Amino acid sequence: MIYADNAATTRLDTDALECMKCYLNEEYGNPSQPYSFSRTTKKALSDAREIIAQCIGAEKDEIFFTSGGSESDNWALKGFMKRQEKKGLLVSEIEHHAILRSADTLSREGYSVEKVAVTGDGVVIPRDVESKLNDEVGLVSVMLANNEIGSVQPVKELSEIAHRKGITFHTDAVQAVGHIEIDVKSLDVDMLSASAHKFNGPRGIGFLYVRKGVSLLPLIDGGAQERGMRAGTENTAAIVGMSIALKKNCERIKVERARLLQLEADLINGLKQNELVFVRNGSPNHLPGNISLSFLNSDGEMLFHRLDLMKICVSTGSACDSKNTQISHVIKAIGVPENYAKGTIRISLGRDNTSEDVREIVEAITKVMKRP
Amino acid sequence: MIYADNAATTRLDTDALECMKCYLNEEYGNPSQPYSFSRTTKKALSDAREIIAQCIGAEKDEIFFTSGGSESDNWALKGFMKRQEKKGLLVSEIEHHAILRSADTLSREGYSVEKVAVTGDGVVIPRDVESKLNDEVGLVSVMLANNEIGSVQPVKELSEIAHRKGITFHTDAVQAVGHIEIDVKSLDVDMLSASAHKFNGPRGIGFLYVRKGVSLLPLIDGGAQERGMRAGTENTAAIVGMSIALKKNCERIKVERARLLQLEADLINGLKQNELVFVRNGSPNHLPGNISLSFLNSDGEMLFHRLDLMKICVSTGSACDSKNTQISHVIKAIGVPENYAKGTIRISLGRDNTSEDVREIVEAITKVMKRP
Repeated sequence: MIYADNAATTRLDTDALECMKCYLNEEYGNPSQPYSFSRTTKKALSDAREIIAQCIGAEKDEIFFTSGGSESDNWALKGFMKRQEKKGLLVSEIEHHAILRSADTLSREGYSVEKVAVTGDGVVIPRDVESKLNDEVGLVSVMLANNEIGSVQPVKELSEIAHRKGITFHTDAVQAVGHIEIDVKSLDVDMLSASAHKFNGPRGIGFLYVRKGVSLLPLIDGGAQERGMRAGTENTAAIVGMSIALKKNCERIKVERARLLQLEADLINGLKQNELVFVRNGSPNHLPGNISLSFLNSDGEMLFHRLDLMKICVSTGSACDSKNTQISHVIKAIGVPENYAKGTIRISLGRDNTSEDVREIVEAITKVMKRP
Repeated sequence: MIYADNAATTRLDTDALECMKCYLNEEYGNPSQPYSFSRTTKKALSDAREIIAQCIGAEKDEIFFTSGGSESDNWALKGFMKRQEKKGLLVSEIEHHAILRSADTLSREGYSVEKVAVTGDGVVIPRDVESKLNDEVGLVSVMLANNEIGSVQPVKELSEIAHRKGITFHTDAVQAVGHIEIDVKSLDVDMLSASAHKFNGPRGIGFLYVRKGVSLLPLIDGGAQERGMRAGTENTAAIVGMSIALKKNCERIKVERARLLQLEADLINGLKQNELVFVRNGSPNHLPGNISLSFLNSDGEMLFHRLDLMKICVSTGSACDSKNTQISHVIKAIGVPENYAKGTIRISLGRDNTSEDVREIVEAITKVMKRP
């Protein structure tokens, strides 16, 4: 099998798994309990928090563990908007559903939500954001990199625009963390969402970076865990696994980027050499390995299933959940012409993919396209 | 070490762990993706849902996976109250903080929250609930069994009272699931919260039972997972682990109950024979193995730490998070006299505990008490 759907989920890092086993098995002490047995888990939690903070240039006590990217996004938007007075929220059109549907919920509760459009490359234009900011806007949320087409957003510029007007800035970095270098101080973001299973960590765990001084209400009320901000017994094994996976990914981020960009180039060139007619969606500044292709007069569903029969996993439609197989909101937002849009697939290469994989993917797609 | 804090968290079942490894390692396909590689994980999810449903007498599509008990409780209360028109919520005084603080949040948002008191045994009296129900109450939430003192609540009677007035009923069964027999149909509850790590399953996973026809808003918006009710890539490994742990616990629930009741009796008798002066908190109908003791003119903190030095893990103060070491809201609610209340510890025996453990606990407590 060739797994080329790393934007949907990734294989768990083997070192992370090895380390998790200890906390899944013998070190089961509840980190909130003050007895000696919990000392190891308490230290593991603390170390993991420190490692994760370092990976994104944050302070340790700015990291709050959550159950994943969706929770982080929901918490950032709902927790922040409900804490302060301004009722306006600005998001981009191509946000993940965890952002868009949280915004819908806020909208039903009386908040005013505005959406900013993107270019044909899938990039938010800073002056568009600027023109939509007014005294009523309390929060701007624009993703760091899009999950479907990989386009990296000008987050630093956007956060500066927001901050000039005293507006808080959140970025959904679920797809980006562990794949492009991130420094929250230099990006100047107030909140940042991440999910472990997108960077070879385990499922069911993620974090929200909250800059010191930014105030939000809990999404999950209860016990005093996470300094009273997120209740629930700490998932030590998953937290430790996440920290190891993130550290490993970050350590080889440049090398891996170069390797993936080469694989991408080989893939695109291969398809072109075989005279297939397609456009590549997204911007020149994109997530390494994230390749969204729209083939002329083709059927993405059909291509997906034919590739599946050849044991190649790619993605069609929306990224993480493919219940909805219509043309995605992202492909619509970037204005892919309909005779291309229907023939869209996303190939997302990850750390396990090789040039041999790319050669086989090119061959397989060509085979399908030439004999649909 | 003697681990006697099973109400805080439990050791992961070894069969559950073995099975989880497969989903943590090779079977990493995203269950929402339609390719063949995800068929195994999709089936695993489906099977786990079926197993869990069977363990509590529910239908498969009435089970929604969450990140744990706190999320389940928050979701049940907030998701239900925000969906319907009535603004009143009734809870008991001795609910877990996940319920009480969710109620506080709702209260700040304009909902009206009432609390019903308990007897000295820590039991809600049905007529007290009845007297507090009016046309404005939309939801009653009373736990199935208390985490600190183990008292089992008359949930069947309470839900009948609520239903007679057309009011929905939720029970926080986090401490009870896997430890006492539960049939949601016979209990006649509309929603029920559970957490895997309380029944020898993994951390970071739980579920909410939602009876067919009961409507609630998502707490975590986003992707279409859990039939659009709870977004986030499914944590397959943890879900499978939870199902195995629950099934195993349920299969031996009667035998284990009898065994734990015997250990409890031995412990209480041992302490009495050694002429220690204490009361046991809770009701005759209680969670097997949950033993809350208040010693006369003693210091629970001191006892806790002395036992810790003797490598015995028990609990003091509130159950799952011990940041707050004052007299807990539960101990206050049941009116333990102050000269006893300060000397409270909770010993919670679980499947690994033996008569030898009990003998050693009795000896250790006696040693501390006789030479404080």
